[in-house]
Amino acid sequence: MKNLVAKGATTLTVLSLMALPALAQDTDAAAAPAVSPEVAYIFNTLLFLIGGFLVMWMAAGFAMLEAGLVRSKNVSMQCLKNISLYSIAGIMFWITGYNLMYTGVDGGFMGSFGPYSFDAVGGDALDTGYSTASDWFFQMVFCATTASIVSGTLAERIKLWPFLIFTVVLTGFIYPIAGSWQWGAGWLSEMGFSDFAGSTLVHSVGGWAALAGAIILGARKGKYGADGSVHPLPGSSMPLATLGTFILWLGWFGFNGASQLAMGSIGDVSDISRIFANTNMAAAAGVVVAVILTQVLYKKVDVTMALNGALAGLVSITAEPLAPSVWQAVLIGGVGGAIVVFTVPLLDKLKIDDVVGAIPVHLIAGIWGTLIVPLSNGDASWGTQIVGIVAYGAFTLIASAVFWFILKAAMGIRVSDEEEALGLDKVEVGVEAYPEFGTGSQRL
Amino acid sequence: MKNLVAKGATTLTVLSLMALPALAQDTDAAAAPAVSPEVAYIFNTLLFLIGGFLVMWMAAGFAMLEAGLVRSKNVSMQCLKNISLYSIAGIMFWITGYNLMYTGVDGGFMGSFGPYSFDAVGGDALDTGYSTASDWFFQMVFCATTASIVSGTLAERIKLWPFLIFTVVLTGFIYPIAGSWQWGAGWLSEMGFSDFAGSTLVHSVGGWAALAGAIILGARKGKYGADGSVHPLPGSSMPLATLGTFILWLGWFGFNGASQLAMGSIGDVSDISRIFANTNMAAAAGVVVAVILTQVLYKKVDVTMALNGALAGLVSITAEPLAPSVWQAVLIGGVGGAIVVFTVPLLDKLKIDDVVGAIPVHLIAGIWGTLIVPLSNGDASWGTQIVGIVAYGAFTLIASAVFWFILKAAMGIRVSDEEEALGLDKVEVGVEAYPEFGTGSQRL
Amino acid sequence: MKNLVAKGATTLTVLSLMALPALAQDTDAAAAPAVSPEVAYIFNTLLFLIGGFLVMWMAAGFAMLEAGLVRSKNVSMQCLKNISLYSIAGIMFWITGYNLMYTGVDGGFMGSFGPYSFDAVGGDALDTGYSTASDWFFQMVFCATTASIVSGTLAERIKLWPFLIFTVVLTGFIYPIAGSWQWGAGWLSEMGFSDFAGSTLVHSVGGWAALAGAIILGARKGKYGADGSVHPLPGSSMPLATLGTFILWLGWFGFNGASQLAMGSIGDVSDISRIFANTNMAAAAGVVVAVILTQVLYKKVDVTMALNGALAGLVSITAEPLAPSVWQAVLIGGVGGAIVVFTVPLLDKLKIDDVVGAIPVHLIAGIWGTLIVPLSNGDASWGTQIVGIVAYGAFTLIASAVFWFILKAAMGIRVSDEEEALGLDKVEVGVEAYPEFGTGSQRL
Repeated sequence: MKNLVAKGATTLTVLSLMALPALAQDTDAAAAPAVSPEVAYIFNTLLFLIGGFLVMWMAAGFAMLEAGLVRSKNVSMQCLKNISLYSIAGIMFWITGYNLMYTGVDGGFMGSFGPYSFDAVGGDALDTGYSTASDWFFQMVFCATTASIVSGTLAERIKLWPFLIFTVVLTGFIYPIAGSWQWGAGWLSEMGFSDFAGSTLVHSVGGWAALAGAIILGARKGKYGADGSVHPLPGSSMPLATLGTFILWLGWFGFNGASQLAMGSIGDVSDISRIFANTNMAAAAGVVVAVILTQVLYKKVDVTMALNGALAGLVSITAEPLAPSVWQAVLIGGVGGAIVVFTVPLLDKLKIDDVVGAIPVHLIAGIWGTLIVPLSNGDASWGTQIVGIVAYGAFTLIASAVFWFILKAAMGIRVSDEEEALGLDKVEVGVEAYPEFGTGSQRL
Repeated sequence: MKNLVAKGATTLTVLSLMALPALAQDTDAAAAPAVSPEVAYIFNTLLFLIGGFLVMWMAAGFAMLEAGLVRSKNVSMQCLKNISLYSIAGIMFWITGYNLMYTGVDGGFMGSFGPYSFDAVGGDALDTGYSTASDWFFQMVFCATTASIVSGTLAERIKLWPFLIFTVVLTGFIYPIAGSWQWGAGWLSEMGFSDFAGSTLVHSVGGWAALAGAIILGARKGKYGADGSVHPLPGSSMPLATLGTFILWLGWFGFNGASQLAMGSIGDVSDISRIFANTNMAAAAGVVVAVILTQVLYKKVDVTMALNGALAGLVSITAEPLAPSVWQAVLIGGVGGAIVVFTVPLLDKLKIDDVVGAIPVHLIAGIWGTLIVPLSNGDASWGTQIVGIVAYGAFTLIASAVFWFILKAAMGIRVSDEEEALGLDKVEVGVEAYPEFGTGSQRL
Repeated sequence: MKNLVAKGATTLTVLSLMALPALAQDTDAAAAPAVSPEVAYIFNTLLFLIGGFLVMWMAAGFAMLEAGLVRSKNVSMQCLKNISLYSIAGIMFWITGYNLMYTGVDGGFMGSFGPYSFDAVGGDALDTGYSTASDWFFQMVFCATTASIVSGTLAERIKLWPFLIFTVVLTGFIYPIAGSWQWGAGWLSEMGFSDFAGSTLVHSVGGWAALAGAIILGARKGKYGADGSVHPLPGSSMPLATLGTFILWLGWFGFNGASQLAMGSIGDVSDISRIFANTNMAAAAGVVVAVILTQVLYKKVDVTMALNGALAGLVSITAEPLAPSVWQAVLIGGVGGAIVVFTVPLLDKLKIDDVVGAIPVHLIAGIWGTLIVPLSNGDASWGTQIVGIVAYGAFTLIASAVFWFILKAAMGIRVSDEEEALGLDKVEVGVEAYPEFGTGSQRL
């Protein structure tokens, strides 16, 4: 029910509620609608605001996760990139993003150009069923999430400014154009593609953009030996990575729950509750599977796999968090956890250097989650799900690659080997993350 | 008013609201209920969802608190345990927990076996007054909190797998069976025991399970000298411990506030507000008392005591956050703060090694909070409070001890001395928390 | 619309809703008010509770920001100060603060003395339009924010106890008396001064108190050379500073959004949505401007400037987050970001040692935000804004200076040079923040 424009969900709710008095006019107690349109409007808007601030908080989650998983010489840079990309996303989703994604798509491939306008102060356009600014805020934080995904994969060797410019393009153009196909009531929506809260539209899109960047950028020095060996470059702080994961988990209740897009009826708020429970269950299953699998495979339990297992469970359930039974949610999330354990080493075999594991978590688990929608949702079809996955993959991969190549040609996207060895904090930020810790000699 | 089943709180609210139109039918303006059952249902469910995500966030709080209070060689393990236990609690509270605790207890000692079922999609069983999935989610995070308490006490020497298996037992069986006595409308509830949000049912139960484990497991190497001396083993990061405390404090507004279990009337939402204020006041008093006492006793203010003072104040007010006046809330929380300052050294005298101070904070302050309920709540009696405290203590201590002994016999619960010296991160996790900091030689 | 007493906003809402049935009595469908006074009461109270817990969370944000920006030898102290000041604020705002600020000001210069009383359990005084305890909680966390601002500026050399005693005075007397002038319906409110959520009443007041303290306390040893040189004393953890900034950003949605003070109509909830969007936009602009300016000026992007740019954007929009168009919000926040970049070095030239940059962020951006209100809000006048800024500055600076001098004379406010070199954690807290990291010799 993500797509307000296509499905007119809230409007229908409001209309049906407005019709209630007429339907019920012969009974005494039900002379007024059970939930007046005004009250439904307040609940719907409140859902966007609460969901919005929870998803905004995910920006902090990505920042901490990435700060924990990079080496200490690049931590300040990851912090800077994350707060910058969230800011850029906010501005770009206002200048071009929202209207490109949601205005006048009408079965097509993109919306219209131009900045978005909020309702006036004290605005009371009851017919929309919610405040326009609350909708903008909620959609904007999804756009920012997409950019966050890219940041982690490309860490420790990408230059600051090409990354920020790519973020402008991704949040102002690539994400909203791709998003318009489905949530903007574009061609995929008309085909019947189903992606409730963004396994594909957000997570895979971010993952494809990251994959394009990772291939073009190349691996970090020292990650892959000439003999095919893989050298772990351990992250600097496991508690920060853990904190980031918990923040993301918390934020995901807003991500999936508020994608119900309406809270003004008991059916809607009950569905949101199901979504909360299923979302939590999928994440829990992702953790448990990752913990058990790493114990079996490696005789130790890798905490980074447990964390990424949670995230993969969350990504997996995002395409359809409402329809699954609890058993299905556990299955969907559990497979997500297994995906992480098996595809992280696979990427290393391909010498694709994904610093934080974002490609397994967001791209591959996102594909899995989107594919499996028809298991629980009878309105979805396997064929259309595949069409959607391929369309998003092709567009995002090509568009991202084009821009990465342009940036590479125009200004270079990678720091020099010497700068990489020194660390981006010294070279581009000028502020060390932890100036008093460690001895220098022990650092990689 | 924690016990929906026993007290039928929400149902009463709904019924009384449904009756309103009839009562008021002679007046013009009040022809409809002031809050329709549908609107009350949305508010009640929203309370569970907001309260639930705040309490879920406490899992991150425990993770950070414990990560900050253990030595750096065991930090990854604490992170892993905390995300794993939260996941296990979610799954077990679905498979057995909820129904054992809430279904068909009927004055007895436990509910029924079997997984919990949510309402169908678009469910609209108005008569319950709230969404079943929201209720499950809210109760589940309380179960997870109980397991979090155990994790800190036993840190730095317990093996991973016995801990996780104990968590399965605690969250799937011990906690829900014990909980059924009171919140499931069991025998203690019929006796008139009073524990609004879980000073005993959550915090003391977690504390008793931790105490059993700590005694059976034994102290960390180097903590207690043969001559009776006590050697502090300082925690690795005070800011993470502080962050954890603030997270817990924030989450506690959901823990206590949403335990009102209804928000669909002005009386209920006003009570929730009182609970917020009293909860904050008790925590504040706990901090102030701990700060002043440590200054007086030790001439320095121990920040870990200030943090635990906040938590003890919170635990103390949890049994009755609604009825107390502000003065009483300050008294109740302040005594909680004093309890921490005086019982932390007491435990050391008994050579019970509680790494994070969870026994003083959750068990002893939990007993205090439960005992003092009759001060402000005329419906509670001193005698019944004592019966409840003793019953929960005896059952949890014995049941936990039995399982700890079984685990000890079956697989061992403690790592070897050599492994303990190396640190659990290297031995069982394989991922160091801070691979680039410190010199190794300075570490304990 | 911050000032409930002065503007009677919620009461008006309630009254107008109560009048609705009469106005609409000739139509069938509108026989009941669209939002009943009871439902509006619940929404208004819920707004205070959600806004309140978000602003409470800002206390953690300040703690992390400051823990990250001080050197590791003073981190435990910053943690201790922040949890203590939040606790003291809670207690003082109950004992004297609330009534001094809000009760019986009546166009004057302060309210009445005495502790605040909440409504009774189950309270249902519908005429106020919200629960009194929720209002107290929401206003209390603003008071705590003011004290948090002081803590950062004076870090690394102020003694614990004088700081805590000053906090008692600030939160119990200075802040509430000053606040009464405007939000308590005092003389400035009658003049038409405009400060929606506290650019001046909270942020500048905190900033003035910090400025007075910084001047009287003097700079840290080693910060300023005799030859006029400035020596950076880098903070110990950029990720913690980043986390703190994200927490503050999140909390600010409650700070500004809930300052609408009512959510029981579609106009109010739409205004809250505008405030969310504008608040986010101003912060984003602050980041982008700070990033670009530091790149241009210094050829590197200083992450601490980016963080403070976000905060300055937030402070700037706080005086009027509702009326501005998006363009204006971007302008207002962007100038805030520029203010930080240009005034941080200016303070250093004046040898005013502000450890975390709180004076640029909270005081100077707060003045800017207050000054610029008439740009978007036609009810404000440039003259009255200046009168308000000057009045708050004069009162707070003088009152704070008097108390700082009293404390200096009575007990000394600064640790000895030797203690400063050792670090406050060893000297006053007795608990090192990071006992296992670093080698000591590398520490400043």
